[in-house]
Amino acid sequence: MSKVKCYAAQAAKAPLAPWEIARREVGDHDVRIEIAYCGVCHSDLHQVRDEWGGSVFPMVPGHEIVGRVTKVGRRVERFKEGDLAGVGCMVDSCRTCQSCRRDLEQFCEQGAAFTYNGTEMDRKTPTYGGYSSEVVVTEKFALRVPSSLELSAVAPLLCAGITTWSPLRHWKVEKGQRVGVVGLGGLGHMAVKLAASLGAEVTMLSTSRSKEADARRLGAHEFALTRDDETFTKLAGRFDLIVDTISAPHDYNKYLGMVKVDGTMVVVGVPPAPEPVDAFSLIGGRKSLAGSLIGGIRETQEMLDYCGQHGIVADVEVIPAAKINEAYERMMKGDVRYRFVIDAKSL
Amino acid sequence: MSKVKCYAAQAAKAPLAPWEIARREVGDHDVRIEIAYCGVCHSDLHQVRDEWGGSVFPMVPGHEIVGRVTKVGRRVERFKEGDLAGVGCMVDSCRTCQSCRRDLEQFCEQGAAFTYNGTEMDRKTPTYGGYSSEVVVTEKFALRVPSSLELSAVAPLLCAGITTWSPLRHWKVEKGQRVGVVGLGGLGHMAVKLAASLGAEVTMLSTSRSKEADARRLGAHEFALTRDDETFTKLAGRFDLIVDTISAPHDYNKYLGMVKVDGTMVVVGVPPAPEPVDAFSLIGGRKSLAGSLIGGIRETQEMLDYCGQHGIVADVEVIPAAKINEAYERMMKGDVRYRFVIDAKSL
Repeated sequence: MSKVKCYAAQAAKAPLAPWEIARREVGDHDVRIEIAYCGVCHSDLHQVRDEWGGSVFPMVPGHEIVGRVTKVGRRVERFKEGDLAGVGCMVDSCRTCQSCRRDLEQFCEQGAAFTYNGTEMDRKTPTYGGYSSEVVVTEKFALRVPSSLELSAVAPLLCAGITTWSPLRHWKVEKGQRVGVVGLGGLGHMAVKLAASLGAEVTMLSTSRSKEADARRLGAHEFALTRDDETFTKLAGRFDLIVDTISAPHDYNKYLGMVKVDGTMVVVGVPPAPEPVDAFSLIGGRKSLAGSLIGGIRETQEMLDYCGQHGIVADVEVIPAAKINEAYERMMKGDVRYRFVIDAKSL
Repeated sequence: MSKVKCYAAQAAKAPLAPWEIARREVGDHDVRIEIAYCGVCHSDLHQVRDEWGGSVFPMVPGHEIVGRVTKVGRRVERFKEGDLAGVGCMVDSCRTCQSCRRDLEQFCEQGAAFTYNGTEMDRKTPTYGGYSSEVVVTEKFALRVPSSLELSAVAPLLCAGITTWSPLRHWKVEKGQRVGVVGLGGLGHMAVKLAASLGAEVTMLSTSRSKEADARRLGAHEFALTRDDETFTKLAGRFDLIVDTISAPHDYNKYLGMVKVDGTMVVVGVPPAPEPVDAFSLIGGRKSLAGSLIGGIRETQEMLDYCGQHGIVADVEVIPAAKINEAYERMMKGDVRYRFVIDAKSL
């Protein structure tokens, strides 16, 4: 066991503060990563504040981890000391169920081992996330990180990147298709970059006109204001796919009206309460309202490789760990363009 | 113009009563059908009572029409006098939009001409349905009816049949898949027959234990009581596809819990109010909640041909037209197994 510095919340209402955890010894299949950066995901905030229920404390959040390998187990094949490596939302899964066999570890029938606020597959050992200086992870759940990219800006790809990449790929977005992205935050700004890069015609659907210039800079071809009711009639039946990144209450039916016949609206954000869906919104065009959850390890690697080839990273603001509570407050106000990333050296 | 006997509602709250309408002369592309039977769909009742809004009166309901061709226009190619023929929910569409070109006339961008409670594509001439002794329809929207089947029991295929066939085909139900059918009524009993015939393992999900024997007779392999909360835990993650035929309020989230990873729940019934959907119900398994509306003309013909080859018809109770108001009352109580069909001779 090695002692590792971190930032932790000791209870649901407590601010994050310096703490120390033990990381396991490097096993035969493990890699140890000295963390360079860890992105700050909105779900960190939800879980630290126990807004989804079931949070376990003390909690060390963080599942957008990048760094450098400092030690590998003797049976590790894909990494060697000094390599860049990343860890996303999962650190293990059962590896044998149907979902795991389909490279969809996020839907592991036994429940994947999430990177924090969970347990290892022994269902006892708590997992602690990336607001820390070091992590030990089994090779299968470590990702190769392209060396061509700015490392701090790669971190958010491990969650925000794959969460938006996966639905774009699953619903086969390609050149000539029209994609609407709802909300320009951490997820939304990655959805715009990735969808545009895949050749889609991207429309940013936002409540705030102040986001227009940024949306276009990130790759959006069109911008439409969702505070304006005319938007919904003007864009009726327009989109092959809508990627809905919003966690605030909003009327799914209005957005479904902008989906094409046989099109899909996929939600990756979770509003605070269930949203009423009118059956007619779906029936009148054989439309689908779907959900998507991060992505499997294989797909996460594909996304990282793609981003390396296409020079895609997140827009980030690097902060020292001591600023994390302040960063949460700013996230609540939408005051971040578009992802905070903790510099782990500051720990 | 020819005068035709029918049953009509003169206003939203009025009972249906004998009336007379004019059918157009048989044009070059038209066929005139002497109606033998017309099924009584639950949507007839909704529209006669203006429960969906926008109903137009007088209204002659009925879109499950079968009969015999008595006259064909001089450019008609697929029908001749004496042939069996059917008319479903549509009598025309624009024929040029993207949906029409994809054989999805039900999603015609100009709005299809529905068989009743609508207008022809001139957007002036009202359409009157099959509670009548004769109908004139353009050849393209007339269906060939297999002669091997009991004609009265074919009628409901034109709506209940295609409405359940289309999602089974669209979501590619095949041997070995698990299909759940929610609700054993006019739509549900066809969904069971068709899904079982396609080789799926069918589970009837019903609120009423009294439906079990019938469900099994119709082809269901399993029966589960949805009043029993244990059903939802026992069948968690079980179904590739759930076909939800229910128009009563029910919790979509509970049913989505029984859908497999990457599976779909497709609604063909319309509850009286929008149903709240928890984003987690979709996200936790990349599930889809979808809708489906009848089917296109090509697909309706495929369904009729398939039913002819496999000897599939609806379970019907034939009634004289004079019993229609009573039949509506019985439908409200679920007292029909599983479709009333009007004998048009009684007009």
